[in-house]
Amino acid sequence: MAQATDGDGGLGREIVRRIDALGAISETSGHLTRIFLTPEHRAAADLLLAWMQDAGMAAQLDAIGNVCGRYEGEQAGLPCLMLGSHYDTVRDAGKWDGPLGLVTAISCVGDLHRRGKRLPFAVEVAGFADEEGVRFASTLLGSRAVAGTFDDRVLEARDSGGISMRDALLRFSLDPGRVSTAARRQGELHAYLELHIEQGPVLENQGLPVGVVTAISGATRLSVALSGMAGHAGTVPMALRRDALAGASECILAVEAYCRAEPGLVGTVGSISAMPGATNVIPGKAVFTIDVRAASDQQRTRAVAEITDRIRMIAGRRNLVAAIHVTHENSTAPCAPWLRQQVAEAIAGEGYRVFELPSGAGHDGMAMIDIADVAMLFVRCRGGISHHPDEHVDPADADAGARVLLRLIENFRPRPEAARR
Amino acid sequence: MAQATDGDGGLGREIVRRIDALGAISETSGHLTRIFLTPEHRAAADLLLAWMQDAGMAAQLDAIGNVCGRYEGEQAGLPCLMLGSHYDTVRDAGKWDGPLGLVTAISCVGDLHRRGKRLPFAVEVAGFADEEGVRFASTLLGSRAVAGTFDDRVLEARDSGGISMRDALLRFSLDPGRVSTAARRQGELHAYLELHIEQGPVLENQGLPVGVVTAISGATRLSVALSGMAGHAGTVPMALRRDALAGASECILAVEAYCRAEPGLVGTVGSISAMPGATNVIPGKAVFTIDVRAASDQQRTRAVAEITDRIRMIAGRRNLVAAIHVTHENSTAPCAPWLRQQVAEAIAGEGYRVFELPSGAGHDGMAMIDIADVAMLFVRCRGGISHHPDEHVDPADADAGARVLLRLIENFRPRPEAARR
Repeated sequence: MAQATDGDGGLGREIVRRIDALGAISETSGHLTRIFLTPEHRAAADLLLAWMQDAGMAAQLDAIGNVCGRYEGEQAGLPCLMLGSHYDTVRDAGKWDGPLGLVTAISCVGDLHRRGKRLPFAVEVAGFADEEGVRFASTLLGSRAVAGTFDDRVLEARDSGGISMRDALLRFSLDPGRVSTAARRQGELHAYLELHIEQGPVLENQGLPVGVVTAISGATRLSVALSGMAGHAGTVPMALRRDALAGASECILAVEAYCRAEPGLVGTVGSISAMPGATNVIPGKAVFTIDVRAASDQQRTRAVAEITDRIRMIAGRRNLVAAIHVTHENSTAPCAPWLRQQVAEAIAGEGYRVFELPSGAGHDGMAMIDIADVAMLFVRCRGGISHHPDEHVDPADADAGARVLLRLIENFRPRPEAARR
Repeated sequence: MAQATDGDGGLGREIVRRIDALGAISETSGHLTRIFLTPEHRAAADLLLAWMQDAGMAAQLDAIGNVCGRYEGEQAGLPCLMLGSHYDTVRDAGKWDGPLGLVTAISCVGDLHRRGKRLPFAVEVAGFADEEGVRFASTLLGSRAVAGTFDDRVLEARDSGGISMRDALLRFSLDPGRVSTAARRQGELHAYLELHIEQGPVLENQGLPVGVVTAISGATRLSVALSGMAGHAGTVPMALRRDALAGASECILAVEAYCRAEPGLVGTVGSISAMPGATNVIPGKAVFTIDVRAASDQQRTRAVAEITDRIRMIAGRRNLVAAIHVTHENSTAPCAPWLRQQVAEAIAGEGYRVFELPSGAGHDGMAMIDIADVAMLFVRCRGGISHHPDEHVDPADADAGARVLLRLIENFRPRPEAARR
């Protein structure tokens, strides 16, 4: 049995210490903000590289600023199991989103290293320099570079201070002409595996410290405009109204009802406005957004079609004109069944009930799936709160996540032939 | 039979000509805007005074700028039946809202005058100088002065250019210290009767040119804030949400359903916002307004209580916190049954089906009720559109309104003793 599984929480304590240390590296004191290609990025990278080396890894910054550590297997140059997550943050962030997966991976490798344990494959740890996309309004920059799908046009994107990504790389002593060298070849990876906080309340609700992710949900965003007839709130009887906001309200409840009835589906109306927007005027127009996510593209596509139909029906019945547009769409990144199975076995091996859930939030696996099968292990976070200073993981859960990940690494079997992509 | 009832539309043609003439007196050409105590107010007043004199009335401006015409009865000094409406407008107004009632009243008196007809009571026509309240954000200024309920504090109110009402009166050659002299004593009036465009679609829907107003509806305005829990649109399953906007949507439909089920009641949610208001965030807070109007205070009070209860129930079921505040309230001004009866008889006498409806919009009767029983006669307007350049009355309907009003005047019987206030 591995050193970390003796229940003393040894890995968990190390992880929490390191999360605190990383969490102190921030643009502003008091609030955590750590943005791509800034001095804080550099400081955090240096710390991570030192921890990687301490864990027996060869470690270096790649061409886009990712930290990359490699722990060789039973012989040098074997394909790797790649573990990873990101170490940039949103503004006024929590300290667990990203770093937990990265720090846990390093601690697990450190545990192998301390025991002199070599595996029939290499283990690599990738610390992605930009997942949140805060600085250049383009997400997954670090993992896209590794997956070889980095779009060079983003080099011309400018931050709020007018600095292009190209210049920011140069100031960071990186060569914008060499970003492509960060890319890895498909044969170099057995799989990409990420541990991450759930960022939702499901595991807490289930009373479980960890869960198996089934897929990183695809998302469709819609913009809906309903047009009716504005009118005097006092003089138009209810039966003669074409109230766009009442129609929108019915649509919002239809989105909720449809998504409630289908497990794995979520639908959100996050933004609405009614025009002209005066207390004493019947709204002649209402505009709102819909965000639909599902663990399968098929389910999401069907949901969007069905929701669109219902909106058109509601509009028709209320004599409103509906204009519905898709403003954003991205596909589901399914976790590979053979990998999910191994995640589940490791969870069960640590004595926890195996529970599967989709990831509604985006993660680096959405980029990594282009060069490797991916899987994710979620760790419970308090109240499902994320992207907020109140983001919190119980140290015992951090330890549970580490024990499951270590067990998973030690028992990892490369993808069987039958499951080849 | 009166001259106007011979079906040649004679009064209607005169009224439409005068409406057009008044409609040309505007602050801006192209759009109709005629505001209290401006040069356009003066020009319109001069025209109205001339028409009044032409109709055989003694006519003058009162202390607040109302035009007041008096057509004596069979002997001088008799109490009057007061007819009236206002001649100020909103900005970018239609030309019928206010002037139709005023011009029709003058034309009816003119018809009596041409025929040398004297009645056992005087007929007065009041043209109120400010009903809309555009300039000093205080409505019914003209009729409140006549009713003796003008609030002197409004004299200190300033328009958007910083000019106080006091100064504006002085520049108009009126004495702000003498506004109270515009007030009439209760015994001077048998009743106050106003013809006005409906400003709603009910008469058009009924296929009727005119209708009897039952009451000027009172109104209650509420502000509602629902608080739930913001969350990530992707990571919080439907069953674990406390979505404030979904809750607000249910409340909006509850307002609509409750008001639909009760004739005479209208409820409107005209304004809403969801916070934080991002496409990918579940709204943690939603704020909206409710405007409730009914032809009786009892019905409105019951509706507000019931709607408030339903909102609290919805909030409770959804685990939201509801904060509900009354932001505005004014009582119903009921039309006197004995007067409504005479309006109905005049409508029937002109061969139209008698149809009763409440006025959801406010009118000078709300002020005049403090010194006299009031009644209103509505005239159909196209599409229910008002406060808009598209406001329109068919000339035949203007004529129908005039014939009904003239019949009403000629057959008017003062309030029976049993109906004394």
